[in-house]
Amino acid sequence: MVPVKRTALWLVALGFFAAAPALAQQPASGEYPGLETGKMWTFDVPPLEYWARRYNFRPSQEWLDHARLSAARLPGCTASFVSADGLVMTNHHCARGCVDAVARQGEDLLGNGFYAHTRAEERACPGNYVDQLLEISDVTQQVAGAIPAGTPAQRAADLRNDAIRGIERTCRGTATDLNCQVVAMYAGGQYKLYKFHRYTDVRLVMAVEASTAFFGGDPDNFTYPRYDVDMSFLRVYVNGQPAHMEHYYRWSANGSRDGDLVFVVGNPGSTGRLRTMAQLEYTRDTQYPASIDQLTRQIAVYHQLSDLSPERAAANRNQIFGLENSLKAITGYQSGLLDRQLMDHKRQWETDFRARVNANVDLKRQYGAAWDNIARIRREMAGLDAHRRYYAFGAFGTSLLNYAGTIVRYAAEMAKPDSARLMPFRDAMRQRMEGRLYGNTPIDTTQEIRLLTAYFTAMERELPATDPVRRQALGTRTPEDAARAMVQASQILTGDQRRVLVQGGAAAVAASTDPFIALAKVIDPLERPIATHWTELMNEETSNNELVARALLAVFGNTVSPDATFSLRIQDGEVRGYPYNGTIAQPYTTFYGMFDRSIGMGGREPFALTPKWLAARDRLDLSTPLDAVSTNDIIGGNSGSPVINRDAEVVGLVFDGNIESLPGNFLYTERLNRSVWVDSRAIIEALRRVYDAGALANEMTRGN
Amino acid sequence: MVPVKRTALWLVALGFFAAAPALAQQPASGEYPGLETGKMWTFDVPPLEYWARRYNFRPSQEWLDHARLSAARLPGCTASFVSADGLVMTNHHCARGCVDAVARQGEDLLGNGFYAHTRAEERACPGNYVDQLLEISDVTQQVAGAIPAGTPAQRAADLRNDAIRGIERTCRGTATDLNCQVVAMYAGGQYKLYKFHRYTDVRLVMAVEASTAFFGGDPDNFTYPRYDVDMSFLRVYVNGQPAHMEHYYRWSANGSRDGDLVFVVGNPGSTGRLRTMAQLEYTRDTQYPASIDQLTRQIAVYHQLSDLSPERAAANRNQIFGLENSLKAITGYQSGLLDRQLMDHKRQWETDFRARVNANVDLKRQYGAAWDNIARIRREMAGLDAHRRYYAFGAFGTSLLNYAGTIVRYAAEMAKPDSARLMPFRDAMRQRMEGRLYGNTPIDTTQEIRLLTAYFTAMERELPATDPVRRQALGTRTPEDAARAMVQASQILTGDQRRVLVQGGAAAVAASTDPFIALAKVIDPLERPIATHWTELMNEETSNNELVARALLAVFGNTVSPDATFSLRIQDGEVRGYPYNGTIAQPYTTFYGMFDRSIGMGGREPFALTPKWLAARDRLDLSTPLDAVSTNDIIGGNSGSPVINRDAEVVGLVFDGNIESLPGNFLYTERLNRSVWVDSRAIIEALRRVYDAGALANEMTRGN
Repeated sequence: MVPVKRTALWLVALGFFAAAPALAQQPASGEYPGLETGKMWTFDVPPLEYWARRYNFRPSQEWLDHARLSAARLPGCTASFVSADGLVMTNHHCARGCVDAVARQGEDLLGNGFYAHTRAEERACPGNYVDQLLEISDVTQQVAGAIPAGTPAQRAADLRNDAIRGIERTCRGTATDLNCQVVAMYAGGQYKLYKFHRYTDVRLVMAVEASTAFFGGDPDNFTYPRYDVDMSFLRVYVNGQPAHMEHYYRWSANGSRDGDLVFVVGNPGSTGRLRTMAQLEYTRDTQYPASIDQLTRQIAVYHQLSDLSPERAAANRNQIFGLENSLKAITGYQSGLLDRQLMDHKRQWETDFRARVNANVDLKRQYGAAWDNIARIRREMAGLDAHRRYYAFGAFGTSLLNYAGTIVRYAAEMAKPDSARLMPFRDAMRQRMEGRLYGNTPIDTTQEIRLLTAYFTAMERELPATDPVRRQALGTRTPEDAARAMVQASQILTGDQRRVLVQGGAAAVAASTDPFIALAKVIDPLERPIATHWTELMNEETSNNELVARALLAVFGNTVSPDATFSLRIQDGEVRGYPYNGTIAQPYTTFYGMFDRSIGMGGREPFALTPKWLAARDRLDLSTPLDAVSTNDIIGGNSGSPVINRDAEVVGLVFDGNIESLPGNFLYTERLNRSVWVDSRAIIEALRRVYDAGALANEMTRGN
Repeated sequence: MVPVKRTALWLVALGFFAAAPALAQQPASGEYPGLETGKMWTFDVPPLEYWARRYNFRPSQEWLDHARLSAARLPGCTASFVSADGLVMTNHHCARGCVDAVARQGEDLLGNGFYAHTRAEERACPGNYVDQLLEISDVTQQVAGAIPAGTPAQRAADLRNDAIRGIERTCRGTATDLNCQVVAMYAGGQYKLYKFHRYTDVRLVMAVEASTAFFGGDPDNFTYPRYDVDMSFLRVYVNGQPAHMEHYYRWSANGSRDGDLVFVVGNPGSTGRLRTMAQLEYTRDTQYPASIDQLTRQIAVYHQLSDLSPERAAANRNQIFGLENSLKAITGYQSGLLDRQLMDHKRQWETDFRARVNANVDLKRQYGAAWDNIARIRREMAGLDAHRRYYAFGAFGTSLLNYAGTIVRYAAEMAKPDSARLMPFRDAMRQRMEGRLYGNTPIDTTQEIRLLTAYFTAMERELPATDPVRRQALGTRTPEDAARAMVQASQILTGDQRRVLVQGGAAAVAASTDPFIALAKVIDPLERPIATHWTELMNEETSNNELVARALLAVFGNTVSPDATFSLRIQDGEVRGYPYNGTIAQPYTTFYGMFDRSIGMGGREPFALTPKWLAARDRLDLSTPLDAVSTNDIIGGNSGSPVINRDAEVVGLVFDGNIESLPGNFLYTERLNRSVWVDSRAIIEALRRVYDAGALANEMTRGN
């Protein structure tokens, strides 16, 4: 599982403000309407009644405070405090940057791992920080109060951002060890101020080898059964001394058992659980089929290229892995959208939700039209979709048409004021764009012809013969003939050729007979209005999305958890296997399984075991539980989250979800969706027997 | 994988005779048209050109004879000779009857396994035999010659059966150690005489514990990765001495490797690869959805019943397992029919095949109409389907309506001559039927009400409100109310009540006010014509199926392998993993994996390891390959087949297919379809280190 993308953080800042629901129809105490939006609860609104009913578990406020203060946030990841001396546990892939950064000349810490036998050997991670959530307060009214009624949208957005920055500044004051962040919940239906203690002296204590953390590599990524020990340890220091932690998770003496209630505490990055049926159907029927088709064609091209020579095969390997992982993820999301049972359930829920909105005059007036608006917007988007994909520069990863597009647009864009230009032409981006345009990276014409052929083949299937772009690109030629002829006739193959053309200005471009320039000239005027229209639709949809989110809050109140926003959540679940592959996925794997998987896959990368593991084989208790699955509702950003039991003791370390959890992006169900984590017992066994890190194991199991 | 059902054997006798193809368009040498019917080759027509081209392997006739003579057939299973002294290797589940039969007072050989340390300790299996295929000859003309042109169908069938019995008798002569069988290939397009040496003194040498053979039980059945050692050893004796075998498979010194060419030699039971698109679509769209719906409803009922008490849970366990395994198998078959890629391929192949038939005047006249006939027959069947399922006695496993149906029909059926009666009323079956009818097994009314509710609920969805059976069953009541009211008012709850009613004759039945009798009276006259029509359609379809099979032979000749007929085949393939669960299934598992799976599933049945295995853990080389997968095209009946390499040496022992191989019932593809076998190295390691059976291991590895 990859850490949450930073865009998740940016999205938080985009929600438009609206007044808190005037009229929240609070459901009967303890009613949790279908857990439709999942189980990513915030610490200020824990679902105590639901937990009591479901698990016969009712944590005290003290328990909740302790669980919150023992958790931590890293950039894009989660972590936890696991000793009184500031020890921090997270995934290896969350500390990878530090591991790389602290390596000294001649050291390969990613390859060989790292362990500081004494505190003096712990190495400072440059620029790293660890945030501990001190408190949450509701600032919805403050944000709302900053915007007079009737303020136009753009001005309102500016005022809201100013208000938020102001609240954050006031919260931080002059402190250097505080971080304050206003988090928009329910797409801006609520604003919460999250106040963190920020630890900025962070040192690396221990890291496994990268190949141990990512055993099974891309093939096993997102799947289960798994055999990974994806862990690293950091320590936070204050004034040059290990920070003394009042709150940290104790280590469970016995670990977990099948069926146990467990909580994940972490920072899920981003979900789209409030998407309407119209949005899901568009994604299912228009967006994903096209993406899957394009990825499949691109992968096929790179495989064919790889067959040409071992050099090409080596050069394309990462490209293929990357495309295949994207395909795997999208196919996983799509599998949920194609699941009739899931979608029927969602449809029924939405019908019921809308009926509740429409049953109240005020709610109906404020929010009632949002779903139909969104459906109309998506219908319009579907109508634009094919043109948007094929009236494009650089589709399918081609280069020459991409360059041609930049050249054709250069003069017109540079004549505009900076803020009115298309993004790549703005001053902040321009240097990068020109670096590529005038650079001398040679064009791989064989690859270019094949990618263009794939692009044209798809275009030929999707656009009618009368389409001007298709006519210019193909005429009566086959896609392959057209691609070959265009590349062979091209006069923009080198950076110098492209520079001359740009410097020649509009006249030179007009006079060019390059076939890519000719095609770009046809695309340019057709693409611009489509892009503009698309942006308008997106903006209009954002407003309607906010209405849906506020309607949710108005109808159900806080009993439904808000979409993930990379803010701290507590996520309940149970250790539990699930139906898979015609049989049952076991709740736990063991070290036996790690050796089985490695040998069964021929011991080759990414299934090779490191010398440390091979040497430790006879010392290890191979029956130790290694990885486990539970029903907790997680998503990217939860990487590194602790898994804790009823006593708030650590029983695991989250590092992935199973492939069946991918639809959780949009649709939550605990039928097959599972968190995948390293078992606490495997962590201790590996530290003691593989990494000669008994002192570190003792620090956690003894608590200091 | 279960051994092939005996019905597969009976089916062989059902094919109607037809003259050998007058006009076989032999395809160009080496053309194998899509391997559409799979790769279950007969030993008399091995695909030498295909093997040479595909694997660069061209076995000599001597190699083929040796491979054939080293193989063996058991009832419903396959086996192989693996030493000069008559040692026979097969699956445990193929010798289970013998293991059970030879146990002495106080012994639990199924639970504990068996090993004869000396030959004197080998125990005779009562009634067992082992067949070795000595020769194959073509008797198509002999069978054809026995039937004068123009003979009516029923008479022709009798003559053909007489001819076949005559050929078999002549072949056997007075020998007591021969078994001769005429096998109909291509639905009677060809008849082949298979002559076997029959060994009738068969003794048990070694058997593992049943739980080792079937490790993972029903959940893991049909799946992979697997960790089973499903093996047993027999020995054939002649004149009280171990048989001296001229031909037996030698043991491979090194086993196999990923990618190796391997052959399975065995007796696949039955396939339906010649089914037309119309038949497949009917199965996909009508038959299986109804079966899946019914099984799902029944399983839900038994689960609900199990929730009522631990006693019910225990009583229902086997019932649930059985239903779930049926559901798993049908869902597996259906997954192939729902695979658009597979079905598109099949459709294209059928279109091409029909075009070839229609391109020749004679072929078109003889066979051209068969596909449309079958399509029409299936359309008629689809029209009858709902009535056939709901105008039924005992649907969904209910009892009372079943009894009522028997009672209502009793008088009318018994008045007919024996051969004209419905099957349960014939003299041969009657005792059994009456035993049940008059028996005093109490009716579980709670269960009966719930099963009836499931039946009525499905009926309510499928039949219109005006339907007379639905009207009688439900009226205006809900399914549950109707079921409850009927059971509560029933007067046929005991065997005595039912006997009184039957003995009262037609008058008593006419006067009965029992609600099930009343419903049966409505169903009876409606069901009879439907059953008759259905039988007519089935017979008509059988004739058309034969036309399709003969057209295949006429167009492609022997280059396409005939459907499985539980006769000896040689099946080529390669050791190869496959995409599964978002990642790659490993080509081999190891003993490490066995311990991982057992511990990961909590060590509970059916994942418990026996004391022998637990004790042997530290003696075993856990990295030994345990189970493996290869692309060989197998099906039930192949259980116990040897897997051999290019040198005809044993590298494995087939015991199952993966879940992706289930569609192989109808559609063959090597994309995901895999054979699952015990690796030869695991066999030796287990014999030496777990079962203290070094002498047996030596006999195979040394060859005597």
